[in-house]
Amino acid sequence: MSDKVAKRERFLSVFPGLVEDLIEVLNGYGMTPEAIEWFKKNLEYNTPGGKLNRGISVVDTYAILKGFKSTDELDNETYKKIALLGWCIELLQAYFLVADDMMDKSITRRGQPCWYRVEGVAEIAINDSFMLEAAIYVLLKKYFKGEPYYVDLLELFHDVTFQTELGQLLDLITAPEDHVDLSKFSLDKHSFIVIFKTAYYSFYLPVALAMYAAGCADEKDLKQAQDVLIPLGEYFQIQDDYLDCFGKPEDIGKIGTDIQDNKCSWVINTALKLVTPEQRKLLDENYGVKDNAKEKVCKDLFNELGIDKLYHEYEEKVAGELKEKIANVDESRGFKGEVLTIFLNKIYKRSK
Amino acid sequence: MSDKVAKRERFLSVFPGLVEDLIEVLNGYGMTPEAIEWFKKNLEYNTPGGKLNRGISVVDTYAILKGFKSTDELDNETYKKIALLGWCIELLQAYFLVADDMMDKSITRRGQPCWYRVEGVAEIAINDSFMLEAAIYVLLKKYFKGEPYYVDLLELFHDVTFQTELGQLLDLITAPEDHVDLSKFSLDKHSFIVIFKTAYYSFYLPVALAMYAAGCADEKDLKQAQDVLIPLGEYFQIQDDYLDCFGKPEDIGKIGTDIQDNKCSWVINTALKLVTPEQRKLLDENYGVKDNAKEKVCKDLFNELGIDKLYHEYEEKVAGELKEKIANVDESRGFKGEVLTIFLNKIYKRSK
Ligand SMILES: [Mg+2]
Ligand SMILES: [Mg+2]
Ligand SMILES: [Mg+2]
Ligand SMILES: [Mg+2]
Ligand SMILES: [Mg+2]
Ligand SMILES: [Mg+2]
Repeated sequence: MSDKVAKRERFLSVFPGLVEDLIEVLNGYGMTPEAIEWFKKNLEYNTPGGKLNRGISVVDTYAILKGFKSTDELDNETYKKIALLGWCIELLQAYFLVADDMMDKSITRRGQPCWYRVEGVAEIAINDSFMLEAAIYVLLKKYFKGEPYYVDLLELFHDVTFQTELGQLLDLITAPEDHVDLSKFSLDKHSFIVIFKTAYYSFYLPVALAMYAAGCADEKDLKQAQDVLIPLGEYFQIQDDYLDCFGKPEDIGKIGTDIQDNKCSWVINTALKLVTPEQRKLLDENYGVKDNAKEKVCKDLFNELGIDKLYHEYEEKVAGELKEKIANVDESRGFKGEVLTIFLNKIYKRSK
Repeated sequence: MSDKVAKRERFLSVFPGLVEDLIEVLNGYGMTPEAIEWFKKNLEYNTPGGKLNRGISVVDTYAILKGFKSTDELDNETYKKIALLGWCIELLQAYFLVADDMMDKSITRRGQPCWYRVEGVAEIAINDSFMLEAAIYVLLKKYFKGEPYYVDLLELFHDVTFQTELGQLLDLITAPEDHVDLSKFSLDKHSFIVIFKTAYYSFYLPVALAMYAAGCADEKDLKQAQDVLIPLGEYFQIQDDYLDCFGKPEDIGKIGTDIQDNKCSWVINTALKLVTPEQRKLLDENYGVKDNAKEKVCKDLFNELGIDKLYHEYEEKVAGELKEKIANVDESRGFKGEVLTIFLNKIYKRSK
């Protein structure tokens, strides 16, 4: 079993106990068996099926901050408690994804039908998404109520939840799939959307949670982490946008659909800054349409504009800036730049 | 201006400032004007249009607990802070109602189209409902972070939110509007649904919030309040179910639709306990169908079964029990039974 698979297995092994904790609360309330079964299926169908990078990175970060060589050195009780924070991110993501799939009318998610498309679910998925979010606070209360940083955890989840919803809102009104209007796009909006919709909950949240749990969450250190992780999250999403258009399907494991889906991606926004009026007309006529020939017109233009080269310049520039920031991290209060390096290394020059 | 209208006006006067508080946060994040306008419209369209009983009762209860003769004696700063807690309940309700209307495919709410039916909104309403909930925690943080009971307020909102979602879930899977199956109904389920879906957030939450703010929220006193307010909330909903079927349209201001809507109401559940096999067959064939003649078959049967009389017996019994509980309230720590009497008097023998 590879290190990565073993890590994932250990993280996954915490999940059933957490489902039991939640079900115990419902039993305590006298909830009917049918409704308990429903909630259990909601949790199991929507929470653990992804890559779990966010959740696992909480435990990884915690181990580093505590000076362990690896998470293997964490005893089971400690591991479970910290992994639970990771699962709370996965629950938060499940909450967002169940709803996002309804709003985007998506068909599949993680290789299975989206939850709202499962037999008998339909709009009940809205209340189910609510319950995935509520589960976070049930678990935090059970496991962290006694901790001096309990209220910090609650506020962190509240803040990041709201930030993600703000990013989602701007995305929804800027790039509706059924109405193309490129005049609504801009690199500034793109930056806001990716930072708020993705970077806070995917990059800052795991590290901040681990910092609280490890007892090194001085405001200055949280700021040091945020100052690297937010631009890093933006870089990650820009890279994702780049790969969707320029990556090889055999590398990225899927065929990009951003052009046909009218996505407000870094690629189109960068192109919009460079186009002549004639080229702009081409984009207006061919972007955001479910048509392979039109998609090709856009791709050819992106190549003509040299977007590929601009991406690599951006990547080198941002990676350099982040490395410098990390090198200058003040570790005097117990925070460690290494935590950030690990995140950066997972992303830099990724091709999949 | 009647006392009641004046009360409502003062409560409403707090709302614009709270919208400004929220918008300030979005401005601080650099959100675009279009998205800020959207969020503002979401708040204004969905939050203040109802009766505001829940929100106003927070201030009323607070004044009584503090020994004031009326809320008029509260200075503006105090009034605003306590009213804000009331508005947090209204935001919580807005969050639930925006989603409930989507799940029930409702057409109108409070005399206007449901939010998801407003031009351009559609499924974005899901994210909008999320943002109404998130607004609660932004406001609590801004106004109550310094209070010793801040974390109690957060947990109270978390708990009551989850309870309401549990009630909603049981309701959704027990009584889908498009599939009648009376074998799923029972008085026990009805009791769970109304207590969880309505009583906690509409009856217990306003009083508990006021108790925290007034500094008399000893665990024993919260329990005293809950022991009266939860059965009172159940009574309120049973009365609502009763009036939907037996109330005069000119009194209740609407024509009841529970029978045609396949509602899991107290009336049908009580009937199901009493019917012969032949009468049960009548209900199976006629309940939950959008057909006036079939509705009449059900109503005639309810009359034949004497549901009306059973309701009045229930009402006298529960009101008597509640009066006795209130008479025995231990006021030694500063809690006051009067708070509960006022709630009871608003409901007892109500005909509208
Ligand atoms: Mg989507
Ligand atoms: Mg989306
Ligand atoms: Mg992508
Ligand atoms: Mg409804
Ligand atoms: Mg409903
Ligand atoms: Mg009713």
